[in-house]
Amino acid sequence: MTKPSIETVRSRAQADANTFGYHLTPDPELLQGLLEGLKTNEERYGYPSCPCRLASGKLEYDRDIICPCDYRDPDVAEFGACYCRLYVNDKINETKDLPTVPERRPIEKQARSYESSAEKKTETKPEGEAAKTEVKPMSETKQKLWYCKQCGYVVFREDPPYICPICKAKREMFAEIKTRVEYSG
Amino acid sequence: MTKPSIETVRSRAQADANTFGYHLTPDPELLQGLLEGLKTNEERYGYPSCPCRLASGKLEYDRDIICPCDYRDPDVAEFGACYCRLYVNDKINETKDLPTVPERRPIEKQARSYESSAEKKTETKPEGEAAKTEVKPMSETKQKLWYCKQCGYVVFREDPPYICPICKAKREMFAEIKTRVEYSG
Amino acid sequence: MTKPSIETVRSRAQADANTFGYHLTPDPELLQGLLEGLKTNEERYGYPSCPCRLASGKLEYDRDIICPCDYRDPDVAEFGACYCRLYVNDKINETKDLPTVPERRPIEKQARSYESSAEKKTETKPEGEAAKTEVKPMSETKQKLWYCKQCGYVVFREDPPYICPICKAKREMFAEIKTRVEYSG
Repeated sequence: MTKPSIETVRSRAQADANTFGYHLTPDPELLQGLLEGLKTNEERYGYPSCPCRLASGKLEYDRDIICPCDYRDPDVAEFGACYCRLYVNDKINETKDLPTVPERRPIEKQARSYESSAEKKTETKPEGEAAKTEVKPMSETKQKLWYCKQCGYVVFREDPPYICPICKAKREMFAEIKTRVEYSG
Repeated sequence: MTKPSIETVRSRAQADANTFGYHLTPDPELLQGLLEGLKTNEERYGYPSCPCRLASGKLEYDRDIICPCDYRDPDVAEFGACYCRLYVNDKINETKDLPTVPERRPIEKQARSYESSAEKKTETKPEGEAAKTEVKPMSETKQKLWYCKQCGYVVFREDPPYICPICKAKREMFAEIKTRVEYSG
Repeated sequence: MTKPSIETVRSRAQADANTFGYHLTPDPELLQGLLEGLKTNEERYGYPSCPCRLASGKLEYDRDIICPCDYRDPDVAEFGACYCRLYVNDKINETKDLPTVPERRPIEKQARSYESSAEKKTETKPEGEAAKTEVKPMSETKQKLWYCKQCGYVVFREDPPYICPICKAKREMFAEIKTRVEYSG
């Protein structure tokens, strides 16, 4: 894997902000720190997980906190900024008054990350028995096909997004498409 | 269901305008009226159907007129504004000269809404026989998987969108993906 | 097919630039030439293939170079502009210093277009034997369902996109969804 430059990380974040009509944080020091955090995480895990949260290092447990995380869009809608304050709306960009944004990530997902992260540091099998510290099996994190009942947008995820990125419908407007699918990766 | 505030409705509409590079109408009174109409419809039906059109109250018949409606993107492309004039392009935003936009919704979809809406008001079964006023069965409104032949965007809808939200290809560039799917909701 | 006007072509390109936070080229003469090229290609092929590249006239071989082409997003991310310089980022829009952007289209796709384009001009079967100049069979250009492991975005394409249009994840984050699908068109 090639190491991303800070400029690449910044350019991607800016493009992403543009797509959704957001701005990058108006605080230049905070911005620099967050971009460096994203760069570090991308080098460490292979994906730019949130610089303000603990990643497990397992993609299937970290999907929801890869930047832009699943919680950004509802957070910007409700508070004007994401949890990290990397992405802000027009108003916060003007006032520069960064809000405190509470953690929206469900506690069970946080716990899963912590357990998995802790395991990695103590990964030595006890003699005479198989390790018992396995994290939840993949069957519990199985992705499904979902569609937005308003605009038809289709995603393949564990849960539907909080807000449809196409038409902005809320999560409740997503329903499952049942079909037999297999997937790799 | 929680009742949306006017600020939530405004914030969602603004985010949606940003995503597509549109503006909310430059007429402040019109804007206020439309946002209130969206709020009322969301409370009444559970989804923010177009404030300028009659909804049936049945999601499967109203999908195309939930704001942003299916007709917004072709209308903004052709006239600079949607039917309601809630969403306008750069030019209309500057000139503030709101155009009159003709109704693009197909007459059969309008009729379906009117019939269904009328039924609800007279929903009393005649004695001795089953009601005969049923609206068209769901088989006529069956969703399919469609893909954009240009960019590959996948949607699950009755008909393909007028304009691909990702690459802006026109409806004719969509084709069906045939697979056995079941769906809920 | 109705012939698109230059205004329709410009309006679509502008909407597309807005969606991704890009600008149309700041060089007015270049812009006019590119829009005319897009108009000509749309009239000739039925789709607006890139005005700076040779199209085969066969949709299955030209998908990747229909404007906005598959290469635009990585090119704007790396060079600030697409191959044609039709789409540019904020910085190039301000400095008006248009970069030279190398061709990112894989050589085998270019070759396929050239062969197919050349064939059309000499499409006369030699007597006594079947034509041997057939381009690669459709099985080699078979579309698949892909999903973005970060955000769940689903596409039906030959290869995944270079950059996820929703969350900006790179191509490596896409994996295949295996399901039995048939498709038309």
